[in-house]
Amino acid sequence: MVFKRMFQRKGNGYVLDTSMFVNPDARKYFGETIDGAVSNFLATAAKLKGVQFYMPPSVQKELKYFAQKELPNFKRIIVIKSPSLHEMKVPAIVMWKLLDEMRTRVNAGLRVSEKFVKDQNMPIDEKLHRLRVQYKEALREGILDSEEDFEVLMLAKELDAAIITLDQGLVRAAEELGIKCMAVDAFYGHLKEL
Amino acid sequence: MVFKRMFQRKGNGYVLDTSMFVNPDARKYFGETIDGAVSNFLATAAKLKGVQFYMPPSVQKELKYFAQKELPNFKRIIVIKSPSLHEMKVPAIVMWKLLDEMRTRVNAGLRVSEKFVKDQNMPIDEKLHRLRVQYKEALREGILDSEEDFEVLMLAKELDAAIITLDQGLVRAAEELGIKCMAVDAFYGHLKEL
Repeated sequence: MVFKRMFQRKGNGYVLDTSMFVNPDARKYFGETIDGAVSNFLATAAKLKGVQFYMPPSVQKELKYFAQKELPNFKRIIVIKSPSLHEMKVPAIVMWKLLDEMRTRVNAGLRVSEKFVKDQNMPIDEKLHRLRVQYKEALREGILDSEEDFEVLMLAKELDAAIITLDQGLVRAAEELGIKCMAVDAFYGHLKEL
Repeated sequence: MVFKRMFQRKGNGYVLDTSMFVNPDARKYFGETIDGAVSNFLATAAKLKGVQFYMPPSVQKELKYFAQKELPNFKRIIVIKSPSLHEMKVPAIVMWKLLDEMRTRVNAGLRVSEKFVKDQNMPIDEKLHRLRVQYKEALREGILDSEEDFEVLMLAKELDAAIITLDQGLVRAAEELGIKCMAVDAFYGHLKEL
């Protein structure tokens, strides 16, 4: 059964990242807790025919960090597969744009840090808290910022599958690379139809 | 003459970055000042037959920022050419490694910033100065960190040319991508032979 699913024709698959289970905006679809969201999704997915779900091992590992329960049907319903990173290629212009954006963001991160080093009124704990939030915003928000996201992207490309995510950096990168991407609400509607 | 040089067979070219002129360690070869280093290099290069030098436009712009003099023979001796970034490709694993390294470095940059926000003894000016130095070290040193470096890399790949640089991030990236790279001292010896 698993093998039959794995060798299904290309183009009818979905690659999942953690945002569908972890992001508070997505919980209204599959459940309030992360464990609930994962097991509800698996229950729905198990009923579907002719659709395959995929997840890179790195993303599964990330999800395990959030979810408490071991779900025995997880690997039966979601095929765990890395993208073929040693064989696949990325247009040079995409890497150029990433370097360009990183440089801007590294400078923005320094401006944030300088602001809190200069500030002499705020208590240190509050300064540290705000520094962490604003630094993360400056450097990581809305950008392709992790190997996990990149693996989701490359796996979808390799399998001609669609990415299901709420991560804006991932959505932007998928658009740039011509990879199918589906918002969670559209995906949820689509699942109900199926 | 210029056209003849441009269409010479592949593999006998050198791509230059700014480090050969700007980095203090390189000045012993071509001259003490940046302007002197550039004009001495051009004088040597003009005498060579069958060797072509290249520079991406972005690197030339960067060099103009450091050099004071306009050198009329610059563009006659060094072919200014962008790499074909829209046609070339990079192995996906290279982009994966860049994202991996950037994430580690972004975290290291936050640790540096936190250290100076917590410090209550050092005068603010000194804190800011040290923050800038250490932040730059954490985020940019020894890594491929700019579009200019990436263009040098891709241009050398496209032309099957060798990179002349002192930038360690560039050397590492060239090694990873199988691009020829020459240290400035070896290059200087090679020029004298020619």
